[in-house]
Amino acid sequence: MSQPKKFIYFFSQNETDGRADMKDLLGGKGANLAEMTSMGLPVPPGFTISTEICHSFYENKKSLPNWAMDGVLANVKKLEHVIGKKFGDVKNPLLVSVRSGARASMPGMMDTILNLGLNEEVVLGLASTSGDARFAWDSYRRFIQMYANVVMGMNHSLLDILFEDKKAEKGVERDIDLTAEDLQWVVSAYKRAIRDSLGLEFPNDPIAQLKGAIEAVFSSWHNNRAITYRRLHGIPENWGTAVNVQAMVFGNMGMDCATGVAFTRDPSTGEKHFFGEYLINAQGEDVVAGLRTPHPISKRQAGDSGLSSLEEEMPEIYKELTEIYQKLEQHYRDMQDIEFTIEKNRLWMLQTRNGKRTANAAIRIAMEMIDEKLIDEKTALKRVNPASLDQLLHPRLDPKAKKTILAKGLPASPGGVCGRAVFSSDDAVHWKEKGEKVILVRIETSPEDIEGMVAALGILTTRGGMTSHAAVVARGMGKCCVAGCGDIHVDYRLKEFRAQGYVVREGDMITLDGSTGEVFLGEVKTIEPTLGGSFGRLMEVADKYRKLGVRTNADTPHDSQVARDFGAEGIGLCRTEHMFFATDRIDWIRKMIVAEGLNERKQALDHLLPMQREDFYQIFKIMDGLPVTIRLLDPPLHEFLPHDEEEVQEISKRLNISSEDLRRKIKSLQEFNPMLGHRGCRLAITYPEIYEMQAQAIAEAAAHIVKDGKKLTPEIMIPLVAVDTELEILRELVVKTVERVKKEQGVSFDYLVGTMIELPRAAVTADEIAKHADFFSFGTNDLTQTALGLSRDDSAKFLKTYVSEGIYETDPFMSIDVKGVGALVKMGVDLGRQSRTNLKVGICGEHGGDPASILFFAKAGLDYVSCSPFRVPIARLAAAQAALN
Amino acid sequence: MSQPKKFIYFFSQNETDGRADMKDLLGGKGANLAEMTSMGLPVPPGFTISTEICHSFYENKKSLPNWAMDGVLANVKKLEHVIGKKFGDVKNPLLVSVRSGARASMPGMMDTILNLGLNEEVVLGLASTSGDARFAWDSYRRFIQMYANVVMGMNHSLLDILFEDKKAEKGVERDIDLTAEDLQWVVSAYKRAIRDSLGLEFPNDPIAQLKGAIEAVFSSWHNNRAITYRRLHGIPENWGTAVNVQAMVFGNMGMDCATGVAFTRDPSTGEKHFFGEYLINAQGEDVVAGLRTPHPISKRQAGDSGLSSLEEEMPEIYKELTEIYQKLEQHYRDMQDIEFTIEKNRLWMLQTRNGKRTANAAIRIAMEMIDEKLIDEKTALKRVNPASLDQLLHPRLDPKAKKTILAKGLPASPGGVCGRAVFSSDDAVHWKEKGEKVILVRIETSPEDIEGMVAALGILTTRGGMTSHAAVVARGMGKCCVAGCGDIHVDYRLKEFRAQGYVVREGDMITLDGSTGEVFLGEVKTIEPTLGGSFGRLMEVADKYRKLGVRTNADTPHDSQVARDFGAEGIGLCRTEHMFFATDRIDWIRKMIVAEGLNERKQALDHLLPMQREDFYQIFKIMDGLPVTIRLLDPPLHEFLPHDEEEVQEISKRLNISSEDLRRKIKSLQEFNPMLGHRGCRLAITYPEIYEMQAQAIAEAAAHIVKDGKKLTPEIMIPLVAVDTELEILRELVVKTVERVKKEQGVSFDYLVGTMIELPRAAVTADEIAKHADFFSFGTNDLTQTALGLSRDDSAKFLKTYVSEGIYETDPFMSIDVKGVGALVKMGVDLGRQSRTNLKVGICGEHGGDPASILFFAKAGLDYVSCSPFRVPIARLAAAQAALN
Repeated sequence: MSQPKKFIYFFSQNETDGRADMKDLLGGKGANLAEMTSMGLPVPPGFTISTEICHSFYENKKSLPNWAMDGVLANVKKLEHVIGKKFGDVKNPLLVSVRSGARASMPGMMDTILNLGLNEEVVLGLASTSGDARFAWDSYRRFIQMYANVVMGMNHSLLDILFEDKKAEKGVERDIDLTAEDLQWVVSAYKRAIRDSLGLEFPNDPIAQLKGAIEAVFSSWHNNRAITYRRLHGIPENWGTAVNVQAMVFGNMGMDCATGVAFTRDPSTGEKHFFGEYLINAQGEDVVAGLRTPHPISKRQAGDSGLSSLEEEMPEIYKELTEIYQKLEQHYRDMQDIEFTIEKNRLWMLQTRNGKRTANAAIRIAMEMIDEKLIDEKTALKRVNPASLDQLLHPRLDPKAKKTILAKGLPASPGGVCGRAVFSSDDAVHWKEKGEKVILVRIETSPEDIEGMVAALGILTTRGGMTSHAAVVARGMGKCCVAGCGDIHVDYRLKEFRAQGYVVREGDMITLDGSTGEVFLGEVKTIEPTLGGSFGRLMEVADKYRKLGVRTNADTPHDSQVARDFGAEGIGLCRTEHMFFATDRIDWIRKMIVAEGLNERKQALDHLLPMQREDFYQIFKIMDGLPVTIRLLDPPLHEFLPHDEEEVQEISKRLNISSEDLRRKIKSLQEFNPMLGHRGCRLAITYPEIYEMQAQAIAEAAAHIVKDGKKLTPEIMIPLVAVDTELEILRELVVKTVERVKKEQGVSFDYLVGTMIELPRAAVTADEIAKHADFFSFGTNDLTQTALGLSRDDSAKFLKTYVSEGIYETDPFMSIDVKGVGALVKMGVDLGRQSRTNLKVGICGEHGGDPASILFFAKAGLDYVSCSPFRVPIARLAAAQAALN
Repeated sequence: MSQPKKFIYFFSQNETDGRADMKDLLGGKGANLAEMTSMGLPVPPGFTISTEICHSFYENKKSLPNWAMDGVLANVKKLEHVIGKKFGDVKNPLLVSVRSGARASMPGMMDTILNLGLNEEVVLGLASTSGDARFAWDSYRRFIQMYANVVMGMNHSLLDILFEDKKAEKGVERDIDLTAEDLQWVVSAYKRAIRDSLGLEFPNDPIAQLKGAIEAVFSSWHNNRAITYRRLHGIPENWGTAVNVQAMVFGNMGMDCATGVAFTRDPSTGEKHFFGEYLINAQGEDVVAGLRTPHPISKRQAGDSGLSSLEEEMPEIYKELTEIYQKLEQHYRDMQDIEFTIEKNRLWMLQTRNGKRTANAAIRIAMEMIDEKLIDEKTALKRVNPASLDQLLHPRLDPKAKKTILAKGLPASPGGVCGRAVFSSDDAVHWKEKGEKVILVRIETSPEDIEGMVAALGILTTRGGMTSHAAVVARGMGKCCVAGCGDIHVDYRLKEFRAQGYVVREGDMITLDGSTGEVFLGEVKTIEPTLGGSFGRLMEVADKYRKLGVRTNADTPHDSQVARDFGAEGIGLCRTEHMFFATDRIDWIRKMIVAEGLNERKQALDHLLPMQREDFYQIFKIMDGLPVTIRLLDPPLHEFLPHDEEEVQEISKRLNISSEDLRRKIKSLQEFNPMLGHRGCRLAITYPEIYEMQAQAIAEAAAHIVKDGKKLTPEIMIPLVAVDTELEILRELVVKTVERVKKEQGVSFDYLVGTMIELPRAAVTADEIAKHADFFSFGTNDLTQTALGLSRDDSAKFLKTYVSEGIYETDPFMSIDVKGVGALVKMGVDLGRQSRTNLKVGICGEHGGDPASILFFAKAGLDYVSCSPFRVPIARLAAAQAALN
């Protein structure tokens, strides 16, 4: 990339080049710093190096091109002029922070350098201008520690040990108890250690420091944490980060200084009140890192905690901050996450951005902002991430369950979960791979723990507040989190924690309530969530805009009822085989399988008929006229037969055949690739009597409903069709059977006969298949398996590598592979409607509940999606967003 | 269907409505009768009811519409006028034959009625006009027997028994020894039996007889034999048959009468001489049915058989016939199969059609007709069915092998085969299903045996000549056949035959030599065919016209040499895994599989490297500059590991690991659907070192060739690519490796890197994949499995039903499913070339040797097909035909 015309954007009270809508170029932080500055808010001046330079940096072999560094130096001059301080000046030194800032927020994933500009001489100047030698040396120490680690690649624990040793030597516990002299000693020790360890001198020249810091921040775009985070959040690799160089302000220059972070509304509940934390005499990192427990920002928030709030401690500043936050929320029309520093009683705004929030909060804020006329309904719908609804729809702890409380921490991210305690990120991943549910227990979390947090169902920390790393990340992921739970004592070495006299070891079961902050021993019963209020309103608004229908996959009356309660508009997939696995039935289906000849087989089917009829009747009754799509028998018959010898013995007795005959039957049904074997409609081409029985059961159940005085239109679905003739033959069989029942019962009802499109051949010949189908339902699970040649059961082992290497952007079984499987779906829809313009088209694979897939299905022109009952609300919202796109 | 304008086509010396090119309407027989009549040849007059009436008949509920019957009667009148005889007239009766005749020849599959018009009065008239009462009553008996069976549905064995009983009562063996009175008694007995058995009177009215016969012939279009035959030969159901009503002439009216069939050239060898058989005093059915052994038509053909030829017996007639056959061959410009009857020294032509012939004969005739300027090269190419070449390319008996001869019959269809003797069609099917090779042994065959003939590798009959049912059908199918082998004595009941004192029971192995007529005990060694002469010429002519390249699938130097000898223009698929199965290598690949970690794995691969290198070097040497496409490792690793406990014990010792570890490894590699599992390029995404070793072996072998002073361009092929990124990553690995070797060895050569397109996703995203591919090779085996969701290993059980029910027209693994898999291939080619216009595209599935598939591949724009060495000539001819289409 050649040199862009403009690549550095300055911001100060007098001159501001950037705007909030320039995030692509300036990153979120840079764009918002410029915007806040333009709004007249007190922002320390500085400049943003655009994301384009990130590309130049990588193209220039990870080195800042000379022309870019020239631009940086020119802006440093401008900054010196605006602020009246000079970089490297002993008397009046300019110190700066160097921070990353990508288009999307990636909290804590990339690197930051503070206090840059300090050296052996400047530190003395800072001591004299600030009148606080301890502060100056502590700043210098912090700078060396950060810089050595981030820029020079020094192992930070080596420096930590020196610092802790000094505290031990002096017999103090808190950092603040070390004197200026102590810190001066630490600085010298740090430099020696760096020299010994790296063979390098710590740079003294502020300009060299600045170049190193900028390059380190650009480099950090490609560190492992950042790559993992981007993968999890679907952030493209090629966006790059901007770099913000900004004059330092200090919240740690004495007791008239402070630093804090706040949200314009409660990020956990969405309630409309100012919510935040601050620390007197601290730098921003101290609040986020959770090393000291911060204080609440308002009296209301402090409640009876006994902690003094900013509102009480610095009422004037609090008032100023309140005005600013309201102005910011009005300006951005969204809940803001702000960072501020108070330097010697003067308020500085360091950041504003749209605040992360729980799903509950997102919904409440979006709905209330409609009423406040801040945003319109469409904007409100876009504000809620459909996938995040999942956490609301999951179980919470049963309030009536017996519980043994271990401790109480902060309710950092809601929900109730049980799992096995693990004490490191690696262990979390390890136990998860063994198929266990795990809860990650850490003293505090850092970005290195991200993989473990992904693996865990819930996170428990003993330090840190509501805005600690653990809390923020857990909320973003929709995971339950209890933070700052000081009552428990973690021992990483022994892999255990102690609380209330109990010892919880790795693998022991514990339960978290992220809504109350409570931690319980053992497994606590959970209950289904009930939804209403803002959630109900959100669904109503969503239904107003969406065009895609939302049905559910339900095989039982219970599931059907749950799905209706969640707003399902019908059943898109009722799998009849699940009904056969019930203990009172499976022997009959086994008898059918081992039957010698048609008559014996029909006898067994005759026993299944009334059971199936009753199943269908109950489901029809609950669905009360809504469409119900029933898929006829799909799995290979061997799935119903026993697998081990003991079962063979037992079942052969029950079936009244020799165990040898049963074994022979099992052997004859074995398949090399059952996925591609004798299943689906192929069973009915061989044994038409099976589908005939099922069609009869459906028709008789429908007749019963009609006789009850109700209406219905059952939809009968033939699975695994590859060739139009299969459907032609089986449609005829179904129609003949249903018509016979209608005549016998003397009733009349409409019904549809359609097919799954779940094989590539069906998709590419959909025009021919549609001639015999009233509807299509895409079975994207099997379509993915066959189109990609990828067995879902076998691919887990290597699919992870595929996703991490970027061969598949996401797991194609979770979110539809748009380019491949999606192309087949599109072909199927278009060809199908070519033959039959009024063809009803839906999808009933797992993808039906995945928002990204739903967006695709809407574009492809489907009529409805069908998903598991708990994903119905997600689908409703995703469908609305798809309609707004 | 309403009444067509013209639907009956008359033919007589004076007036002929039809022509040879009206086969669609008149069927082959009708069109040729008209044509022969127009040519002035002596053809008994008659008329043809068009195939359109066959449709009318079925639409009219299997009854001839009145308007159609009116047309028939009008033409009967015309026929009476032309011939001067009257239907049902006692003094001068007109008798007719009623025969089927479809667009394509279906010998013996549909029904025929002869001597129609006879009744109790007319028979007396016939006796007096012919002066032969025995002849008249025998004709009437034959008519009743045929009519009762075909039209009235009478079980023919009931009538057979009456006839045999009469012969027994009279103490005679031959039909001819029964007197007119005996036959009169038989006629009465037949009529009683019909009345008793069916409750119906045998019709006396000739018009009623005619209507019944016409309807029966139309009905026979849908009998089981005809349906089976059409399925085997790909004849559409909707063609229908025409019906020919023709004045009878009699070959059985005395010793100055005869009937015969002949070919204008030898149908077995193609040699240009008149070749046929005849019987004095017989009806045509007698020759075809093989009940009496017919005599040769010419002196030359009779040789020293001791049988008198037509040439000697009736020299005048022979001369006339010779003139006619030459005229016919000149007229039709193809070898003709003719039927004639001599009635009281007068020659009548009953049929001419293009004669069925062996592949050898087809080639020789086609090539010689070019030289005779009868046809041009393009026509000659179209005259040979590519699939039929298969019989020439298959092994023949080793002349040096030790043999125990059992008997010698007629060399009815060439080739040498071994198989187990079976004695019924059902048994043939049954043994075949058990995976056995079978030879069907019958006294004579009839159309009912067709399924057994399909199942058998060879056919042996004890009766009938070179034009018997067995011989004609076997030649059409390209199966070995020894006919009329009177030296063996078959006992159906005991399921055995005796010859030369040996007893051969069901399941015993025998060997046939269809080129000599010899039958041997046990299995005789076979050898590869050598090809030349007309065959070589055919290949040369084919190569002149074809546009599609023909390569071969070959994994060994031996196969490569065979394929080159057959004219392969390169290797389209060299499967490297087959090389790993050699006993000196498999333990090294096993070591690689059980290796713990990269280093151990690389050590094992280091041992495989020199072996692979030598393999490739040998193949490159044989192919001498022709392109060689090498597919890198494809099968799942578990295929190389042992399956039973004994092997596990043994192999774990050899590999020097515990049997427990080996078992654990085997278990960890087990897959539910190996077809869709960890295989193909997925192995190399996980273990790049495998492909790296293979690429190195290829490059080093190529370097060796270059150092030998030769040229080559190896083509390295990555299997099972689903996503472009897979290919991108592995192409980079291959290129890096090859370039490294080139540098190390200081040589230079070109090479291509390409991919298999064998997954639907690859086909629909071929534009993206082509960006990283120099060539595509369609793997239509796997593409069929995935597109249809059909496991080749598991589907045999139900696929038969699918083909017989017409769901698939043919087995989609034999001939490409054009609509489904073909659509994906077309998409792949078109999208691929969109990205890369010079993309080389081939196909290397089994379909590469199937003529129908080759036709499709040519249309789809492929550059070449690759098939097994023995199918290379088939592919060359099929490719030429595709180019002419």
